Amino acid sequence: MKIFNPVEIIRKKRDGEVLSEDEISYFISAYLEGKVADYQVSALLMAIYFNGLSENETLAFVKSYIDSGEKVGLSFINKPKVDKHSTGGVGDKTSLILAPLVACFDVVVPMMSGRGLGHTGGTLDKLESIPGFRTNLSVNEFKRILSNIGVCMIGQNRELAAADGKIYALRDVTATIDNIGLIAASIVSKKIVEGAEGIVYDVKSGSGAMLKSHENANKLAFKLMQITKDFGRKAAALITDMNEPLGRSIGNWLEVEECIDIMNPSAKKPPQSEDLIDITLHLAGAMLLLASKCRYIEEGVEMAGNKLSDGACFKKFLEIVEVQGGDTSYIVSPVKYKRAKLTEEVIANQSGYVSALDALKFGQAAVILGCGRMRVEDQIDYSAGILLNKKVGDKVNRGDVICSVRSGAKEKIQPALEMIKSGIEISRSPISKKSKILEIID
Amino acid sequence: MKIFNPVEIIRKKRDGEVLSEDEISYFISAYLEGKVADYQVSALLMAIYFNGLSENETLAFVKSYIDSGEKVGLSFINKPKVDKHSTGGVGDKTSLILAPLVACFDVVVPMMSGRGLGHTGGTLDKLESIPGFRTNLSVNEFKRILSNIGVCMIGQNRELAAADGKIYALRDVTATIDNIGLIAASIVSKKIVEGAEGIVYDVKSGSGAMLKSHENANKLAFKLMQITKDFGRKAAALITDMNEPLGRSIGNWLEVEECIDIMNPSAKKPPQSEDLIDITLHLAGAMLLLASKCRYIEEGVEMAGNKLSDGACFKKFLEIVEVQGGDTSYIVSPVKYKRAKLTEEVIANQSGYVSALDALKFGQAAVILGCGRMRVEDQIDYSAGILLNKKVGDKVNRGDVICSVRSGAKEKIQPALEMIKSGIEISRSPISKKSKILEIID
Repeated sequence: MKIFNPVEIIRKKRDGEVLSEDEISYFISAYLEGKVADYQVSALLMAIYFNGLSENETLAFVKSYIDSGEKVGLSFINKPKVDKHSTGGVGDKTSLILAPLVACFDVVVPMMSGRGLGHTGGTLDKLESIPGFRTNLSVNEFKRILSNIGVCMIGQNRELAAADGKIYALRDVTATIDNIGLIAASIVSKKIVEGAEGIVYDVKSGSGAMLKSHENANKLAFKLMQITKDFGRKAAALITDMNEPLGRSIGNWLEVEECIDIMNPSAKKPPQSEDLIDITLHLAGAMLLLASKCRYIEEGVEMAGNKLSDGACFKKFLEIVEVQGGDTSYIVSPVKYKRAKLTEEVIANQSGYVSALDALKFGQAAVILGCGRMRVEDQIDYSAGILLNKKVGDKVNRGDVICSVRSGAKEKIQPALEMIKSGIEISRSPISKKSKILEIID
Repeated sequence: MKIFNPVEIIRKKRDGEVLSEDEISYFISAYLEGKVADYQVSALLMAIYFNGLSENETLAFVKSYIDSGEKVGLSFINKPKVDKHSTGGVGDKTSLILAPLVACFDVVVPMMSGRGLGHTGGTLDKLESIPGFRTNLSVNEFKRILSNIGVCMIGQNRELAAADGKIYALRDVTATIDNIGLIAASIVSKKIVEGAEGIVYDVKSGSGAMLKSHENANKLAFKLMQITKDFGRKAAALITDMNEPLGRSIGNWLEVEECIDIMNPSAKKPPQSEDLIDITLHLAGAMLLLASKCRYIEEGVEMAGNKLSDGACFKKFLEIVEVQGGDTSYIVSPVKYKRAKLTEEVIANQSGYVSALDALKFGQAAVILGCGRMRVEDQIDYSAGILLNKKVGDKVNRGDVICSVRSGAKEKIQPALEMIKSGIEISRSPISKKSKILEIID
């Protein structure tokens, strides 16, 4: 491999010049080998923050990330393989329904998810709230389960896209997360190495999302699709609203329970879950389109809706829990699960219409309650969380319960309630309920 | 001390917000304590590269640098204390003459200098070419010598402005040197801690300088003066041309020898040293003005000129060498010094007028010859270097010697000659000699 001067590479990017594929590849592999230091990578990342990455530079980052680790070979399974990636939100538990749902159509879903980050929840933490559920499977177990039941949900393996893991950790502590090129390279490389042939991106926009504006979400969505297609994979994207938490619940087990209520045909579907079901079915429709199981997304939405209501999806979910070591008795009878000791309600102090339930504030309150980690070593309280009785657009009367919080620790309740209250707005005039799906790009 | 989130400090600067003095002070002291990592500092430095430092932010950097180490207390010496700082050039040996010259006027000159950096030489390396000369004196020795003979020339002590040393090393390997605020903070903090009450800045501009354009040199000069005055010290600045090497020689001992020829009244002054003498006398004039020894710079220039020609300056230089452990017999009889084994001449291949002797190329050639270090562990060849027979504006005939190179290593000669030749231009039409002093700011 050609050797470059790392300081000269940083200077070029700093001065707005375009880096070659060789330069990017050298910089990243030299970093993994310890020849380029953390402080040089962070200086380059900040220069990228200011000067951006061209399409070719972004591709070079993706290639280098991919080449930095193992790849999951899934070509031995002769079925379409599609996956979904969400940029992260509050109450976003779509993956838990989506993975078994799409797998019902003889489509392989190799799903690798992350943990909660900041105020946003993580699919891994939600799955691990199910007693016994294992997410840290080896690549070989992952492949075996995919081959057997067509779906498996695990955490990011350190041997896959190793450079991305290392650089992501560095971005987190150097204020260099928010760059669309870097975000896209990190996301796409992980999806390519896991073996997906088609990827649906759920790009969130709004107060609780990484990208606040629709415009930036749109830019990221196009960038993700472009790079994915450059690597010969199929792609589609939804831009969805994250100004309000998704569905009825926030908090790991509470979210699993909400998903069970949606998937189990004998359970009652809560009206607060409508937005969640809508987005999940559209994501499923897009995945089925990429898997060539339908002609257009709406057709896939209808097909998915049927499998959701007839119990096939729930059956698949039970299979996943079973094969990944989880105790299915909790899925069949969620009432068995140990509830959080303490509950407190938030009461409407005026009548009107709910005009805002700020996703950022609700997400931060959930972290306070114990749903997420403030430090890496923090223990998660799986039964803690927030249940929404009202959603934006709902009518409220003074004295109605807007939401309730649950936690095992008394001292956490008050600060969480204050955070939540600062995120609630009630309007005198009616507020119309709008679809959370802002844009579909395919 | 108030505690801040370092990532939030980086983000603020990244987003163009202004950092408070507390934030900067926290960041730098937490860095020295190991609570803020190298990679966070380099990310902040790159954000500063892009968004700059306001006057107050620059002052906060200077304060933090000053507070990060010891200070040389010189108030016990009841005389004016003035110093000079140069931004670095090729053949720039002014300090060697200037320090003893100004000390002749009962002005204390507490001079801390650096080593060669890149293609530019360093006063410390030049002094150390004198057999026995010690520059690594303790702060107490420094103070004692200043009190005894009024002048002392040492290296930067690690206990002084410790944060600046650490951050400077980081800037060097992360392409974050070239920011006027950071450059100014680094320079001024060192001068403040060494105890100078008045500082004259020699800001070089041109091919061989850190700042190529007069405009940027001017900006830096004003910034340096402004900060220095903010700290209650007097300041003046010269902007001087560094497109051509200064004086007759480049290379450590060769430069000492040139200075001896200028200072020793019984030696013959080489005509190629005219620009060097001119700049040195004007720097001396500015220092004398700051020390209130004259009413205006030109008066100081004349006073300094007299002390240079009557031998007082040379006598003071011998005192410095003596008290800092150097062998004065080499100063009195420089012919004693062991010459470099090999000499090669560069011959004019056409007649005309020298129109360019590119300082950058000559500086790089000098490093190749062994005058500087390519790596920290490299040994310097003190007798290696380049002697200029012609300077810009001089008439040459085909076959005339333009310059000669000296080195102890045969394999270094050819690459150095090629580098030099690429920096020489000869014009058919006459070129006028211009003053190297582009601007005087006081």
